[in-house]
Amino acid sequence: MSAIEFWYEFASTYSYPAAMRIDRLAADAGVDVRWRPFLLGPILKAQGLNDSPFNIFVAKGRYMWRDLTRICEVDGLPLKLPPVSFPQNGLKAARLALVGERQGWTPAFTRAVFAANYAEQKDISADATLHEILAALGVDADAAMIAANAPDNKEALKRQTEEAAARGLFGAPSFTIGDELFWGNDRLEAALAWAKRATS
Amino acid sequence: MSAIEFWYEFASTYSYPAAMRIDRLAADAGVDVRWRPFLLGPILKAQGLNDSPFNIFVAKGRYMWRDLTRICEVDGLPLKLPPVSFPQNGLKAARLALVGERQGWTPAFTRAVFAANYAEQKDISADATLHEILAALGVDADAAMIAANAPDNKEALKRQTEEAAARGLFGAPSFTIGDELFWGNDRLEAALAWAKRATS
Repeated sequence: MSAIEFWYEFASTYSYPAAMRIDRLAADAGVDVRWRPFLLGPILKAQGLNDSPFNIFVAKGRYMWRDLTRICEVDGLPLKLPPVSFPQNGLKAARLALVGERQGWTPAFTRAVFAANYAEQKDISADATLHEILAALGVDADAAMIAANAPDNKEALKRQTEEAAARGLFGAPSFTIGDELFWGNDRLEAALAWAKRATS
Repeated sequence: MSAIEFWYEFASTYSYPAAMRIDRLAADAGVDVRWRPFLLGPILKAQGLNDSPFNIFVAKGRYMWRDLTRICEVDGLPLKLPPVSFPQNGLKAARLALVGERQGWTPAFTRAVFAANYAEQKDISADATLHEILAALGVDADAAMIAANAPDNKEALKRQTEEAAARGLFGAPSFTIGDELFWGNDRLEAALAWAKRATS
C-alpha cells in the first residue's frame, strides 16, 4: 500500500486543518499515513528566526489568521481566535504524541490537541489540558506522561526533529514520500496523489 | 460582472504559473481580471528582507524550485532552470506592463516576460529582451519604452507598489477582491470563488 509521512508541529496553525482532514483524504486515496510530530522551533532557529515568521513578519501574520479562518470555514472546522498565545509551546504534546505512536492513539490525541489550541483557547503546554485529553481518549494519562518524560522518549523527539531538518523540512505541516517533500496544508492533495502514483 | 485584481512581480516564481492560467480560470468562473504589476523588493525591504526569502532561507528556496517544477509539470508549462539569475530585476518590465494597461497588451506581454524568465533563460532586465517581446506582440516597442520611462509612468508604478503595501500585500502573486486578500498561486481558485460569490 502507498504511504505518506505527515510531519506536524503543535504550534503550527496550518497543521490544524491538515491533521483534521488527512485521515479522510488518505483513506479515499488508499494511502497509509505515518504521523510524525516534530519541533519547528530548532529548525527556524537554525535559519536565524527566533520567533514564528507570522510574528516576525506582521503583514504575513495578519494574512495567515484571515486565511486560516477562510480555510476552516470551507472545511467546517471550529476556530476560536486568538488562541491562548501564539505560538504555543508544543513540546510536551509532541513527546506524548511519540508515546502514542507505540500505543495507537497518536492521530486522535493530535486532533484533540489541535482543537484545544485553535478551537477551545486552551493552554496546550499545561499538564492539566494534556491530562484531560488523554483521559477522554481512555489512555492512562499518568503512565503516558511518565513515558513522555523518559530520557529515551525525549531523545526520540530530538532525533525526529533532526531527521526532519536533514530531509529538508523548514515548515509545518509537511508531507514526505521517500525523498519527495511537500510543504503546507494546501499541498496535501498533491502529496497524496504523488504517494498513490509512486506505488501504482 | 465579478472582478479580481491580480498582483504580480516579474521576479516572482509562483507568479509565473498564476499569470499563465488566470485568464482561462477567470473566464470559466465569469470573473474579470485587472492585471496589476508591482515591485515586491521595496515591500520585502520594509520587512527587513534585503533579498528574496528563497535566497535567504536556503531549505525553503531549494524546496520552492522543486515545488515549481512539479506545478509546471501538472500545468503543462515549460520550465528551464536555473533562470539567468534569481531574482531577476523586473523594474523595466513592470513599467512596461503599466503602459500596456492603457493599450490592452498587458496580459500577453506579462505572459511573454514570465516565459522569457522561467522557460527561456533570458535576461528580462535587458532592453533587447523586452524590445523583442513587444515587437512580437505587434507593439511599437520604441514608443512603449519611452512611455515606460516617462516620469508619470515611473510615479504610477511607485503608487501601485504603495497601494499594494497599504492593502496588506507581502508577497506575489496576490489576488484582491475589495478588502479580501489571497496570497499565492495556490489560492487562485479560492480567490475566483470568492469574487464570484461576492457579486452573486
